[in-house]
Amino acid sequence: MQPLRIAHVAPVATSVPPVKSGSVETMTSLLTEGLVARGHDVTLFAPGSSVTRAKLHAAFPNGYREDPTMWPWEMYELLNLAAAVERASEFDIIHYEAEYYPISLAFTRVAKAPVSQTLHHAPDTEEIGLWHRYPEAPFIAISQEQARLLDGLHVAGIVHHGIDTDNFTFNPVPDDYLLFLGRFTPGKGPVQAIDVAKRLGMRLLLAAAEEQYYHEAVKPLVDDKQIVYVGEVDFDAKVKLFGGARALLYPVQAGEPFGLVLAEAMACGTPAAALDRGAVREVVEDGVTGGVFDDLDAMVDGFDRVLSLDRDRVRQEAVARFGVMPMVDGYVEAFRTIIAQWKAR
Amino acid sequence: MQPLRIAHVAPVATSVPPVKSGSVETMTSLLTEGLVARGHDVTLFAPGSSVTRAKLHAAFPNGYREDPTMWPWEMYELLNLAAAVERASEFDIIHYEAEYYPISLAFTRVAKAPVSQTLHHAPDTEEIGLWHRYPEAPFIAISQEQARLLDGLHVAGIVHHGIDTDNFTFNPVPDDYLLFLGRFTPGKGPVQAIDVAKRLGMRLLLAAAEEQYYHEAVKPLVDDKQIVYVGEVDFDAKVKLFGGARALLYPVQAGEPFGLVLAEAMACGTPAAALDRGAVREVVEDGVTGGVFDDLDAMVDGFDRVLSLDRDRVRQEAVARFGVMPMVDGYVEAFRTIIAQWKAR
Repeated sequence: MQPLRIAHVAPVATSVPPVKSGSVETMTSLLTEGLVARGHDVTLFAPGSSVTRAKLHAAFPNGYREDPTMWPWEMYELLNLAAAVERASEFDIIHYEAEYYPISLAFTRVAKAPVSQTLHHAPDTEEIGLWHRYPEAPFIAISQEQARLLDGLHVAGIVHHGIDTDNFTFNPVPDDYLLFLGRFTPGKGPVQAIDVAKRLGMRLLLAAAEEQYYHEAVKPLVDDKQIVYVGEVDFDAKVKLFGGARALLYPVQAGEPFGLVLAEAMACGTPAAALDRGAVREVVEDGVTGGVFDDLDAMVDGFDRVLSLDRDRVRQEAVARFGVMPMVDGYVEAFRTIIAQWKAR
Repeated sequence: MQPLRIAHVAPVATSVPPVKSGSVETMTSLLTEGLVARGHDVTLFAPGSSVTRAKLHAAFPNGYREDPTMWPWEMYELLNLAAAVERASEFDIIHYEAEYYPISLAFTRVAKAPVSQTLHHAPDTEEIGLWHRYPEAPFIAISQEQARLLDGLHVAGIVHHGIDTDNFTFNPVPDDYLLFLGRFTPGKGPVQAIDVAKRLGMRLLLAAAEEQYYHEAVKPLVDDKQIVYVGEVDFDAKVKLFGGARALLYPVQAGEPFGLVLAEAMACGTPAAALDRGAVREVVEDGVTGGVFDDLDAMVDGFDRVLSLDRDRVRQEAVARFGVMPMVDGYVEAFRTIIAQWKAR
């Protein structure tokens, strides 16, 4: 088949890939480079500080997280996307990694190429209401769970996030701790993770940035012996923490549309003990790559089962299901569907 | 000449015209109806609650100030403008009454008709920076003062705001008070107005909504005898207040791009005593329709001159310079310039 001419519109927050962390920018970079590797003609619309093998269209030299004069930031998102729409006749498809989510609708019926989008969050009622004004706008959902939230809208494909499994090094012989890694918010369940670790009598390392909720709810429970806060970690330290953990604790309270941290831990061979919320069952295969539980009691009761899982197998599953190229191929298939629908409209 | 096919894009905040107050919506309504009266084919993009002789394209039944579920409001501005851009081939020109100011840039190079805009505020540095990315985007400035702020951008015309001079009734015989009417902000100078009135030994009525600055700085100076707060007033009460005033006090501290209240007072026959900031000299003719002073001392010293002005003459000047039809004709001329430039681009 013909290679596709793809305008890939990144957020304008930071360079792509990000210097430090940034899951949307990381995923955007992996998808961009993967599409180039598959022979597609990709133009990345991203800050000039980005590094890519695609053609780079840098409407701005830096991102708005790097340059406080770039305000209001929503305008920079809008104008970065507009830059792609202005060149739409050069592309078969425009894909927006939706940072300021609903702006792409403004171009749905105006651009000379289909404008598609990936959301990286669980859309709220107000957004859904806006999107229903443009029911033809094509989405690529990141999970069945997110597709369910987009019910009634045009979900052209469901493609799980990919991660760079080469750099999430497999560790067959972990240390003897559990790990919580994510943001300190009530929805992520750090307090519940501490509760589980205490009931299991196991050490727990907590890795995340110090947010308000850390000081309010988490810090009082940290004793620096059993419950240890290791701070915010960079990529290399994160991989080491994953690899060294007996299991990742993911007692998530609010449903999430994916759960990148689950896939990352699994790529290092570390199974996850997770609550059955949001997209968890799409990422964790119960009894193979982790345990999926209804509540904390069930998690504590069934924890031995998680600890006994084969780390080799966990790694293999992660590579097979969350590698970059499966994601890239999933996107290409969705892109071709969207282009065909657009031509036939 | 051929009538123009005009897409007039209102803010989505409230109906056009507004039920209560709203200077942008009022001006949008006057311009729309005036364009229709001149025989142009106008489509008004505004909430369904609007009343117009133009064709109404109501993307939304109500405005976001009337319906709290319409959030984020910026998206509604964007999609209302997008609705016009989607129909661009039906119009000779699109004109946006810029409520969420810079979004129109996103369509400058995408729409099949020129997208022009009127700003109703003094643009800040960040906005100017954004606009410089689209130096061809056509503006209709509301004053020389605003055009100066838009230096380096494409100002296709300068057209003063019009007011409905029929409804600002002339009052030849005023009462014996001065008037401050506007928002209670430091920039509008209510404290300075009180100072002037006290130094003159004259009564001052203050009419505006109770804002924080009122409680902080204004209320302590109100004695209900010489300095009287009359609250926020509706249109009819406003006209009566203007007509009954010996003079409007306008000791504005921050430069403004117009000064609608000056024109409104003048239409009722009431001269203005104003500080020489922003666009004041474009609205008030010193010695004819009011007095323009460098500072408060000069205002107090020269106040007799303001009180002695001929109210008939003040009214006549206001009608001649700030009537609706002069504004409408100014816009049509600017629209024709923009359309010609766009066709020749």
